[in-house]
Amino acid sequence: MVNVAIVGLGLVGSELLAQLHKTKNHALRVVALTNSRRMLLSDASYTPLASTAATALAASESATSLSELAAYLAASLVPAVVVDCTSSDAVAALYPSWLRAGLSIVTPNKKAFSGDLELYNEIRSLAAFANGPFVYHESTVGAGLPVLSTLSDLVKTGDKVVKVEGIFSGTMSYIFNNFSTLNTAGEKKRFSEIVTVAKELGYTEPDPRDDLNGMDVARKVAIAGRLIGVPLTLSTLTVENVVPAPLRTVSTSHEFLTRLPEHDEHFAALNAQAAKAGEVLRYVGVVDALEPAHSGAKFVRYPAAHPFASLQGSDNIIKITTERFPNGLIIQGAGAGAAVTAFGIFADLLRVQERVGGL
Amino acid sequence: MVNVAIVGLGLVGSELLAQLHKTKNHALRVVALTNSRRMLLSDASYTPLASTAATALAASESATSLSELAAYLAASLVPAVVVDCTSSDAVAALYPSWLRAGLSIVTPNKKAFSGDLELYNEIRSLAAFANGPFVYHESTVGAGLPVLSTLSDLVKTGDKVVKVEGIFSGTMSYIFNNFSTLNTAGEKKRFSEIVTVAKELGYTEPDPRDDLNGMDVARKVAIAGRLIGVPLTLSTLTVENVVPAPLRTVSTSHEFLTRLPEHDEHFAALNAQAAKAGEVLRYVGVVDALEPAHSGAKFVRYPAAHPFASLQGSDNIIKITTERFPNGLIIQGAGAGAAVTAFGIFADLLRVQERVGGL
Repeated sequence: MVNVAIVGLGLVGSELLAQLHKTKNHALRVVALTNSRRMLLSDASYTPLASTAATALAASESATSLSELAAYLAASLVPAVVVDCTSSDAVAALYPSWLRAGLSIVTPNKKAFSGDLELYNEIRSLAAFANGPFVYHESTVGAGLPVLSTLSDLVKTGDKVVKVEGIFSGTMSYIFNNFSTLNTAGEKKRFSEIVTVAKELGYTEPDPRDDLNGMDVARKVAIAGRLIGVPLTLSTLTVENVVPAPLRTVSTSHEFLTRLPEHDEHFAALNAQAAKAGEVLRYVGVVDALEPAHSGAKFVRYPAAHPFASLQGSDNIIKITTERFPNGLIIQGAGAGAAVTAFGIFADLLRVQERVGGL
Repeated sequence: MVNVAIVGLGLVGSELLAQLHKTKNHALRVVALTNSRRMLLSDASYTPLASTAATALAASESATSLSELAAYLAASLVPAVVVDCTSSDAVAALYPSWLRAGLSIVTPNKKAFSGDLELYNEIRSLAAFANGPFVYHESTVGAGLPVLSTLSDLVKTGDKVVKVEGIFSGTMSYIFNNFSTLNTAGEKKRFSEIVTVAKELGYTEPDPRDDLNGMDVARKVAIAGRLIGVPLTLSTLTVENVVPAPLRTVSTSHEFLTRLPEHDEHFAALNAQAAKAGEVLRYVGVVDALEPAHSGAKFVRYPAAHPFASLQGSDNIIKITTERFPNGLIIQGAGAGAAVTAFGIFADLLRVQERVGGL
């Protein structure tokens, strides 16, 4: 039995709630929900909240207080997990206090695992005990794809991870899979056109520059690196910004998209150069465990036969090279979206449930 | 703390012992080893066996008695796991008695999970408790690739697995990746030549017909199917036998290999037909959850752009299609060999260790 609190009831939090209710897993009981304004705590006997709880949250008159939430969870004899479905730095900063209160944490929020190393190390040391509390964050990299669990297993069983290389951003994947292909059928689309369509499809952040600047990929590189013992930080990682320099400072995303066509020729030329060599353009993240300084978020070319070259849609693909897998262990599939992100969170919750199962 | 007994000290068992000793994970202590003749039990205080235990086993004067082994493990207050590194039906038949004695089981032995459904269901029902004993068998499919754990997570979180399709045999992978390629450079090799080289490289069973008959793939299909709730059995699965009919009854593998060139034209013709359509030949396993009767081990063709077509070496590749992953979640990498098989076993042992961690 595990008490579950969901902090942040946006797309992912709501989908998780739906998945939890659908499976009728009675060992994971949702007893608290919060969004940025309101909070809903189950009664003092920690009765599970019904599947209509999202509606009840909207009607709740309690203002959100994360310290009150933590105290409520810690007061139960039943172990509890806080699921942080925000992308907030402020919430991430609370993890140490939650862990000290014995609360486990499961989250797709990248901030704590890619930001300040001191916070990161504090979290790791507070979650280093066999009987909990536990921290799982599979969905911070590749959403529900089993990337971090596999890296963790490789490390714990004594394998040497040499390199982790991949297309970690669904947005970058969509843009370059469509822009740069060796398939000669059909007319070539302009770069600006593809970015505009990606935004219309909801594949980008509200301002597509927040994807194209490479910072999301850099965060995932830092997370994967730290997990295999390479203490990467955003400030020292090499991050290539795909946004043309003159457009980095324009104030609105509308202006950015309006002026992006001025740079279509630049991207078309890069594409043509690559095609001439039988290659395609891809935006990848790299953790190089042997030469950590070569790690980063990079705009590079791959030959047609490489698995990254034939990627489709907005899939992620991650290649892990180790002593035991010298030719690589590859994991590929949808790496963004509420359903697969919530799946990754749910799978992490099952780990916590299993680990406290005997209690 | 978990007591570990390794049954069967061949290539995989020895590699596992080496990996366990190398990581200095003191929570998993190897206290017993057996091969088909001898047995080595640690003393009554269950002191861990040293890394030289394999030598000590060879010198042991105790005859192997698996019932004595089970009694020895069950007598400790520390939870225990039996790691079955044999491929024996007789050992698999003992699992229910071990589970009844409270012993967990981790194994790459496919027999219990692909054979008699009654044995399978008995094992599942004895391993259905949150506080153990536990059964894990990741290495029965794709060796250390995270295939079964991912399928299990998908099912437990309420996803609907529609199809599992893949190249599950390293041997079949090697043979057809080399025989059937759209790469026109270099001369085409004869089928018999590739099979002979595969045997020389140690990629096949002593008699390559034991790979080419498709039964190994069929077993993996049954295992994956059962895990997602499709109760497949070897006797009802469609299994295509690639061994030419006249060679199925010849008595020795030597005679088989000597006469295989008589059938090179047959395979070359199939290959040419496929190539004409821009396709390649591959031997795959399929679990079709919607039409279970379409499940099986099949010799089929894939277009050049399909991920199965560009596979290299002896890699496995498994594509899982679900409601949440309509375009597939793909896992690819080395799916055979002692190092990666032992890795899969070790990762399973970590699951058991985590689940009894608080005790």
